[in-house]
Amino acid sequence: MHRHFEHALDALKTDIIRMSSLAEQAIAGSIRALLERKPELARDIISNDDQINLMEVRIDDAVVDLLALQQPVASDLRLILAALKINNDLERIGDHAVNIAESAVQCAEHEPIKPFEDITEMARITKEMLRDSIDAFIHSDPEKSRQVLANDDSIDALNKKVVSDLVGVMREHPDRIEHALDLIRVSRNLERVADLATNIAEEVIFIAEAQVVKHHLDKRGAWH
Amino acid sequence: MHRHFEHALDALKTDIIRMSSLAEQAIAGSIRALLERKPELARDIISNDDQINLMEVRIDDAVVDLLALQQPVASDLRLILAALKINNDLERIGDHAVNIAESAVQCAEHEPIKPFEDITEMARITKEMLRDSIDAFIHSDPEKSRQVLANDDSIDALNKKVVSDLVGVMREHPDRIEHALDLIRVSRNLERVADLATNIAEEVIFIAEAQVVKHHLDKRGAWH
Repeated sequence: MHRHFEHALDALKTDIIRMSSLAEQAIAGSIRALLERKPELARDIISNDDQINLMEVRIDDAVVDLLALQQPVASDLRLILAALKINNDLERIGDHAVNIAESAVQCAEHEPIKPFEDITEMARITKEMLRDSIDAFIHSDPEKSRQVLANDDSIDALNKKVVSDLVGVMREHPDRIEHALDLIRVSRNLERVADLATNIAEEVIFIAEAQVVKHHLDKRGAWH
Repeated sequence: MHRHFEHALDALKTDIIRMSSLAEQAIAGSIRALLERKPELARDIISNDDQINLMEVRIDDAVVDLLALQQPVASDLRLILAALKINNDLERIGDHAVNIAESAVQCAEHEPIKPFEDITEMARITKEMLRDSIDAFIHSDPEKSRQVLANDDSIDALNKKVVSDLVGVMREHPDRIEHALDLIRVSRNLERVADLATNIAEEVIFIAEAQVVKHHLDKRGAWH
């Protein structure tokens, strides 16, 4: 029975790794479609979202089976429920990739405008956050989770900068308003992906240290 | 033991109803702060989000206890896991209320612009969707869930109209770009709240009919 449980838990972790790879690839692909102006690639990302959705359902089913058959308690139970939440977070990341891909299709019809560099940097950091948060979950590594939390501030700052730059573009070039809006949408979607990676990281810290950092006190002493 | 389980399940449902009331009040309050130009009310909404966050943690803990102590299987297990997801969705709705309240603070500094009527209508439908989805969960009513799903299309259409109207405003009044962007943000946040209510409704149908409508085939025969 015990060996059986360990085996099922490993299988669940492997599924979460696969699911996170799909989500990561979707984000990377949607950003590449935007930067390299490839609407066909963007359409692929949109249609491939099925795979992520189906995988979410499959992992949910595996969790139900695991809980029903093995009836885990204490830390095993918390770990499995965390996997359920992470699964849901990853599916949402897939949805954000679809949003970015939709904007990439729109953007390909217009002359490129700045600030692509900041969006590239946001995508790079976000991808790292997602990968680190999943690594932290797989290896129960709260220290790695804390790195993810620290990176979230950079993403928020970059998002603010991108929005402010694009407001400037809109003011000077009213004919580019719709294009700029699409880029703002991309930036906000990346910010949301970073938030979801942060959720995953907080979940890992919560399990590891059995303390609620999810709604942690921020620097101003107020609830974050 | 059985009576104990029924009692714990009722307590969980009551908690979900309370949590949804908090989320609904937060959305209603943030929209009122926007429409009536009351930044103080908006700030209250922002600081009250603590309550929703703490309640999420409390409900999560209750679910862990319920699973560990009662070790439910089959439909009871699925119901409890659905409550866990719904709890998470409600917490996210609270976050969207905070986003709307932040925009309300910004908007109060500017001359009001249209299209407030469409935003009012979006808020009305979204509130109804949220309430119906929770009712559907509490009473295991898949028919009520289907109404929620149908309403989601109206919200998407209204969101598109609001964005398009505001692009028009930005084009004619470049000095109002930032204000219009805040209203677009409000509209998109309401659209996300409607999506989350839709998630809840789909969860109810899934439990009731043990079929996956979450990633359902849409009218075009493609995965939604």
